[in-house]
Amino acid sequence: MTQNRMETDSLGEIAVPGDKLWGAQTQRSLENFAIGQDVMDPDLIYGLALVKKVAAKVNQSLGRLDENIAQGIITAAEEVLEGRHQEQFPLKVWQTGSGTQSNMNVNEVIANRASQILGGELGRKKPVHPNDHVNLGQSSNDSFPTAMHIAIVKAIKERMQPALGYTRRVLQAKIKEFDGVVKSGRTHLMDATPLTVSQELSSYDAQLAFCEQAIQESLETLFDIAQGGTAVGTGLNTPQKFAETFAATLAQESTWPFKTADNKFMALAAHDAVLKASGSLRQLATVGFKIANDLRWLASGPRCGLGEYILPANEPGSSIMPGKVNPTQCEALTMVCAQVMGLDQAIAFAASQGQLQLNTFKPMMVHNVLLEIRLLSDALESFTKNCLEGLEIDRERMSHLLQQSLMLVTALTPKIGYDRAAAIAKFAHENGVTLKEAAGQLGHLSAEEFEHAIQPEAMTQPSGD
Amino acid sequence: MTQNRMETDSLGEIAVPGDKLWGAQTQRSLENFAIGQDVMDPDLIYGLALVKKVAAKVNQSLGRLDENIAQGIITAAEEVLEGRHQEQFPLKVWQTGSGTQSNMNVNEVIANRASQILGGELGRKKPVHPNDHVNLGQSSNDSFPTAMHIAIVKAIKERMQPALGYTRRVLQAKIKEFDGVVKSGRTHLMDATPLTVSQELSSYDAQLAFCEQAIQESLETLFDIAQGGTAVGTGLNTPQKFAETFAATLAQESTWPFKTADNKFMALAAHDAVLKASGSLRQLATVGFKIANDLRWLASGPRCGLGEYILPANEPGSSIMPGKVNPTQCEALTMVCAQVMGLDQAIAFAASQGQLQLNTFKPMMVHNVLLEIRLLSDALESFTKNCLEGLEIDRERMSHLLQQSLMLVTALTPKIGYDRAAAIAKFAHENGVTLKEAAGQLGHLSAEEFEHAIQPEAMTQPSGD
Amino acid sequence: MTQNRMETDSLGEIAVPGDKLWGAQTQRSLENFAIGQDVMDPDLIYGLALVKKVAAKVNQSLGRLDENIAQGIITAAEEVLEGRHQEQFPLKVWQTGSGTQSNMNVNEVIANRASQILGGELGRKKPVHPNDHVNLGQSSNDSFPTAMHIAIVKAIKERMQPALGYTRRVLQAKIKEFDGVVKSGRTHLMDATPLTVSQELSSYDAQLAFCEQAIQESLETLFDIAQGGTAVGTGLNTPQKFAETFAATLAQESTWPFKTADNKFMALAAHDAVLKASGSLRQLATVGFKIANDLRWLASGPRCGLGEYILPANEPGSSIMPGKVNPTQCEALTMVCAQVMGLDQAIAFAASQGQLQLNTFKPMMVHNVLLEIRLLSDALESFTKNCLEGLEIDRERMSHLLQQSLMLVTALTPKIGYDRAAAIAKFAHENGVTLKEAAGQLGHLSAEEFEHAIQPEAMTQPSGD
Amino acid sequence: MTQNRMETDSLGEIAVPGDKLWGAQTQRSLENFAIGQDVMDPDLIYGLALVKKVAAKVNQSLGRLDENIAQGIITAAEEVLEGRHQEQFPLKVWQTGSGTQSNMNVNEVIANRASQILGGELGRKKPVHPNDHVNLGQSSNDSFPTAMHIAIVKAIKERMQPALGYTRRVLQAKIKEFDGVVKSGRTHLMDATPLTVSQELSSYDAQLAFCEQAIQESLETLFDIAQGGTAVGTGLNTPQKFAETFAATLAQESTWPFKTADNKFMALAAHDAVLKASGSLRQLATVGFKIANDLRWLASGPRCGLGEYILPANEPGSSIMPGKVNPTQCEALTMVCAQVMGLDQAIAFAASQGQLQLNTFKPMMVHNVLLEIRLLSDALESFTKNCLEGLEIDRERMSHLLQQSLMLVTALTPKIGYDRAAAIAKFAHENGVTLKEAAGQLGHLSAEEFEHAIQPEAMTQPSGD
Repeated sequence: MTQNRMETDSLGEIAVPGDKLWGAQTQRSLENFAIGQDVMDPDLIYGLALVKKVAAKVNQSLGRLDENIAQGIITAAEEVLEGRHQEQFPLKVWQTGSGTQSNMNVNEVIANRASQILGGELGRKKPVHPNDHVNLGQSSNDSFPTAMHIAIVKAIKERMQPALGYTRRVLQAKIKEFDGVVKSGRTHLMDATPLTVSQELSSYDAQLAFCEQAIQESLETLFDIAQGGTAVGTGLNTPQKFAETFAATLAQESTWPFKTADNKFMALAAHDAVLKASGSLRQLATVGFKIANDLRWLASGPRCGLGEYILPANEPGSSIMPGKVNPTQCEALTMVCAQVMGLDQAIAFAASQGQLQLNTFKPMMVHNVLLEIRLLSDALESFTKNCLEGLEIDRERMSHLLQQSLMLVTALTPKIGYDRAAAIAKFAHENGVTLKEAAGQLGHLSAEEFEHAIQPEAMTQPSGD
Repeated sequence: MTQNRMETDSLGEIAVPGDKLWGAQTQRSLENFAIGQDVMDPDLIYGLALVKKVAAKVNQSLGRLDENIAQGIITAAEEVLEGRHQEQFPLKVWQTGSGTQSNMNVNEVIANRASQILGGELGRKKPVHPNDHVNLGQSSNDSFPTAMHIAIVKAIKERMQPALGYTRRVLQAKIKEFDGVVKSGRTHLMDATPLTVSQELSSYDAQLAFCEQAIQESLETLFDIAQGGTAVGTGLNTPQKFAETFAATLAQESTWPFKTADNKFMALAAHDAVLKASGSLRQLATVGFKIANDLRWLASGPRCGLGEYILPANEPGSSIMPGKVNPTQCEALTMVCAQVMGLDQAIAFAASQGQLQLNTFKPMMVHNVLLEIRLLSDALESFTKNCLEGLEIDRERMSHLLQQSLMLVTALTPKIGYDRAAAIAKFAHENGVTLKEAAGQLGHLSAEEFEHAIQPEAMTQPSGD
Repeated sequence: MTQNRMETDSLGEIAVPGDKLWGAQTQRSLENFAIGQDVMDPDLIYGLALVKKVAAKVNQSLGRLDENIAQGIITAAEEVLEGRHQEQFPLKVWQTGSGTQSNMNVNEVIANRASQILGGELGRKKPVHPNDHVNLGQSSNDSFPTAMHIAIVKAIKERMQPALGYTRRVLQAKIKEFDGVVKSGRTHLMDATPLTVSQELSSYDAQLAFCEQAIQESLETLFDIAQGGTAVGTGLNTPQKFAETFAATLAQESTWPFKTADNKFMALAAHDAVLKASGSLRQLATVGFKIANDLRWLASGPRCGLGEYILPANEPGSSIMPGKVNPTQCEALTMVCAQVMGLDQAIAFAASQGQLQLNTFKPMMVHNVLLEIRLLSDALESFTKNCLEGLEIDRERMSHLLQQSLMLVTALTPKIGYDRAAAIAKFAHENGVTLKEAAGQLGHLSAEEFEHAIQPEAMTQPSGD
Repeated sequence: MTQNRMETDSLGEIAVPGDKLWGAQTQRSLENFAIGQDVMDPDLIYGLALVKKVAAKVNQSLGRLDENIAQGIITAAEEVLEGRHQEQFPLKVWQTGSGTQSNMNVNEVIANRASQILGGELGRKKPVHPNDHVNLGQSSNDSFPTAMHIAIVKAIKERMQPALGYTRRVLQAKIKEFDGVVKSGRTHLMDATPLTVSQELSSYDAQLAFCEQAIQESLETLFDIAQGGTAVGTGLNTPQKFAETFAATLAQESTWPFKTADNKFMALAAHDAVLKASGSLRQLATVGFKIANDLRWLASGPRCGLGEYILPANEPGSSIMPGKVNPTQCEALTMVCAQVMGLDQAIAFAASQGQLQLNTFKPMMVHNVLLEIRLLSDALESFTKNCLEGLEIDRERMSHLLQQSLMLVTALTPKIGYDRAAAIAKFAHENGVTLKEAAGQLGHLSAEEFEHAIQPEAMTQPSGD
């Protein structure tokens, strides 16, 4: 059992577990916000630690911070960036809406750790002070949104884009694998004119490409950072060029092209780039839903459904129906997509609720976007690996259904007009005969003419004339 | 071309078209809020006119209003209630968030019309004054929410409940009509154990019954009215017992059991009963979506889909594919249900945004609930009349699919256990044989035993033992 | 390092860590669904374990299960109910949409543990088989939704209702404490007629009471359970009266009045009661948002805001602005409320997406409702304890503002009419004088008459005449 | 009373009012879809008519359509484009989900009108046939989404962008007008460090600029059109190069840079560009909400609120409180923004619900986006004209509040450190004295030093060192 030590802040003294690096403000938040179970995301802590490291560098280079202290901060921040102090960041998402308490958590941990490194004692704020040194030239109001952008950029680059890329690669391989197989199209769920399996799947790939671009566009706006605005956006207590130098240094450290936001007032009071990022993830959620839902329908059966596609049998599907196999990866993906749409909705709500110089929904907004990214990237990877990679088609079934389809009649319209073609389809449907028989009985076309006109494969592209 | 007359309010004079009954404040709103095309719903105007009529009665009975003037107001209000002055209420939904301008619109029209009836001139506010007489003892802040409740109750009673009742009646007739027909169930879209068509449809009826109850519960809370709270909920400028007398008189006039709200501060600052009503309509939207989506899938085909149900062919379905018929009523209903879910979302947002003594999203909230009711009731009626009434089933197709289903194997588990039953299903699936053949080949059951155990009809209920 | 053992299911063998109680199907799910970080909620596992215990009792009493085996299952289930095997339930929320894998997880753990208790070996399915014994007479399709209802009822009873009750008690104490203090009302954020602090706060209590009732109503419908429907709702493979006996036994075991659902097809294919529960929590979210937002505005300042209320100073508010204190509990609560509205939206979406005999969004729906309950109950408790309990008012400030308010003029209307009262207010506003001065200068009222008419305290209720 | 004439389609004969230009399919839809009151938006009809005109040109140029007939179609389409036949398009939004009925409505009206122009008779489909000529080479499935894109592009270009531009111009003029006025900032609604009025307003302009870019990006993707995909995306029944030629001709006719979509299967089955457009409008809705909400708070009072800004007094605000003026334009705008967020939600839902080769939520999606544009553009214009143009500030009030603010202490931190600065602010707050007095009494700073350090104007920018 470790002993407590006393830490102080402007409200006075408070006992902190002796083996922890955090200080008074972290401890107060811990006691005052016992809400839910989600702690601030590690990616966000990473973002804050990177802010501290870069700020120390810039402050030193601008002559505002003693070299020793700067070096202590940098070393401590690097330890955090390496993930060495995860357990020192216990604060919940549901805290103050500016994220001040997590900013102070990082300030306190780095100050204590840097002091320790420099030979000082925990809890003395000497030689390194959490506000006067680690937070120098910063406010939570600009540091936290800067960390939000860093965290989201990191998650998009390291999780979302790779997952999306993987799904597209496998999809494109399947498109190639099933090249040339013709099947019945379906519009309004009703039989329609033919298309190829590859064409059907290409629609999904095109949708994913659309999402990729939307995500990329949202990334561009996330590169604009708030740092340098300090308390309300004016840059009070920063030296000239602090904002620009910070952004340049951050870009260098991260290798991502961050730059200082044109309008710092907006950067504190609004999170439009975060909403935009969420909006692009929402696009992906609607697409993921469509793909998964289509595939489970196309694979429905095995004997009473459409049965054109065959999904891998990964698990027994039922605790009561022996031998049943279900489209479980599709289900997980559709659940995730629905969840993402809900999380996004909370972000949009929050985006509208900034008041005056500050939006105080910051921790929730970044939590939700990071969760959207994690859920979508994990679910896409799981779906791709466990379902898409093993996707098969039942060529016989496809061919069998296609041959029966009344909508092949569409190929006749250029020749005999819509009205007579419709009469043939209607006759065939009502009398349960084939189109060819119907055409013959109605006298609109000879069998030979019919066969020349109706070639399913030719119907999968514009005509040659 | 009618000449203008001058009307006045506390901001001064303003020209009003000479043939209109409205006054200065209506005219200002007309000029200042040219937003969108939706005017305040007639049901809401009805609610406000009823408030004015009842208030005049109560004010007279409490000795606060001259009999002549009261009678003039009552007569004018009755004309509005009969729908005779629709064109006098041109204001948009998107106006002041308290609905003050529409309250004043009704005050002005009734004052002018009552003055006219009593021999006065338009625009003189004599003998009947819009504020001092028509609005006596009222504020927009209590009158408008009272009118909201009246309008929503009216729309639920006159539109929503009848439409829902009609759908349930037709559904129950279909349940009866298709009694005893056994088909394959589907869970996860995959073949499952059998059920009857009536059982399948009964699920929809049970869901609709659930919605009916939720709507009824929300109705109960709508009977609590704000009237008597006046400006901020205190009842300033009303005599003792005004609120109670008003509610009793309104109940009598409307035949609906309105009563005065226990807490008038809440009744002005929040619209929880309106959100609850919208929530119950959202329930119905999710149910309508499910029913329509199920039916179009079950009727998909005619040759490449499930093809178990047959929907009426109401229109040619395609401008290019001759003879195509689509589940158009299902589509209209699903679109309406999605729209209702969006409208409800706006209401929930607005419900959270009341500030201090007033929620200023009133016109939007009532507009959306009334629109939800209109869309859902119209769409349910259209769907029921044009689709459900003509619903047919393809008994042969159902029987054919059922016989093939591997999930009949479930009936064997009580006898041979889950693991061996699973082996039979798996064998049948992999080798494309029947369950009976598989059972025989695996040696788990004789053909006789098999036939005794597997009786689809018996599988649609708990076993007899 | 523990060695693996081999477990089998209908797909074959799979290695399971030797020290785990779960079996093949849990292991497959673990490997196939590495999505996100949320595991199935302990309350849901509790619900499933209770289903297994009750089913064993019923099966034994109906003569379908050997007493020894039944007793083994009951003992093992009770261990789970006591929370002794939490680490045996590692499956994610994002799995098969029926929750089959978590149902099997519970079946496997209980079967293995019961076998162990009865002297058997892990992984042999002897003497207790996960499907044939633990899952006897059940399907995931009825067990999982039954467990959903149990879990939600538990969470509402044990968390939500107590938290709500606590908040209301503290609020009512404050209403009493501040009795009789008059202040300016505000509508449209503009100065309005007076009310008392107690009246202002009573509005919040009335809204919370409304939510309490809505939550209670949703609870009533959650008592209807799916158990006995088995695979598709027909009750296949259950004996007669199984459903009713199960519900009665469950009611006894839990002390909550569960009963068997009238329509089991609906109980599997739809989760309308879950949506209704979420809808009632959404009501609470909109109310929580309003209360927290009002309070932070009323406490804004300390010198440039409204400054009527004083919130406890719990933490330093800013890393850059010394001495700043912020309404942090209000912010946490508003963030939670916004989040709940998003989670609810995902549930509504999912509620509409049931297909045919099954809704496959079950794990997400129950996850979200349980999360809504946890967040709302924790946040309400935190807010009440750390903010509401210490709420103070600034009587001087309230009195000062009230005296200046032009809206006191409203009390004159019954005497001098709306138009002249408006002229007085306008004159006072434009000339920066008091109402009394304006009234005098315009000659509408003597100072004596004015003072008799304008008594703020009297304006907080209906007049005596 | 006009007599009916008989029109025919593949379902047979149906009576159509003799004076109408529409045909059988329009008539059927009119009778089968009596849902709600919203008819298909005129902009959408414009889009379809433009498709028909362009198709006729292209078909003629490719030698597929007789010159005479082509010319008849072009002339008839131009009449529609000029708005001459509005009453001929009576179909509701809530119809078939592909918009087929409205596509046929336009086909029928143009065919009948073209036949008329060419000397034919109504209802004979001669010489111009609605399917074989007007719809030649098209399907509803590609024509309707093409018309959706045209309509949305038109509405963005002609309504949304001009309205947004107007608001920004007025805002920028205000920023200039109020240059140099310093006021207290507010974060968490609590007093914060100073900023200028222009800085405060610049945040809104920057947010609007962000929205402008998002809307522009969504426009880019709307230029990709579906035309040429016909029934399922394959281009069946179109000649080679039809799609490309159509897009080029459309670009020429419209002057907007339309081009043929790379993947036609996606263009029919999904409406990702429409969701993206809606997403960009949602961005604007959250921004409009924030601006309007901020302004009404900053203008709250006149005597019990913040009172820094003064909004124009456009109407009497209350039916009971004389002289009250409310922020009505802010309220209308916030209601509209909330509504847009709901409409957008319905679009996102619909975007996820495409099935196989077709998304059947087309009419609802385009209806909602067009409604979003109309509401936002109208509301922004109304707000700008009636509120923003007349916005004034109360310099005295701003100065008075600023002087009192304790957060000026922040400027001391670089000099005396965070902890001592906090002590000064705390002392001043608790003892009700000025910062200067507190600094003196605590001995941290002389009055002279204090005055040198605390200069509000200097605090609105980074420091010079």
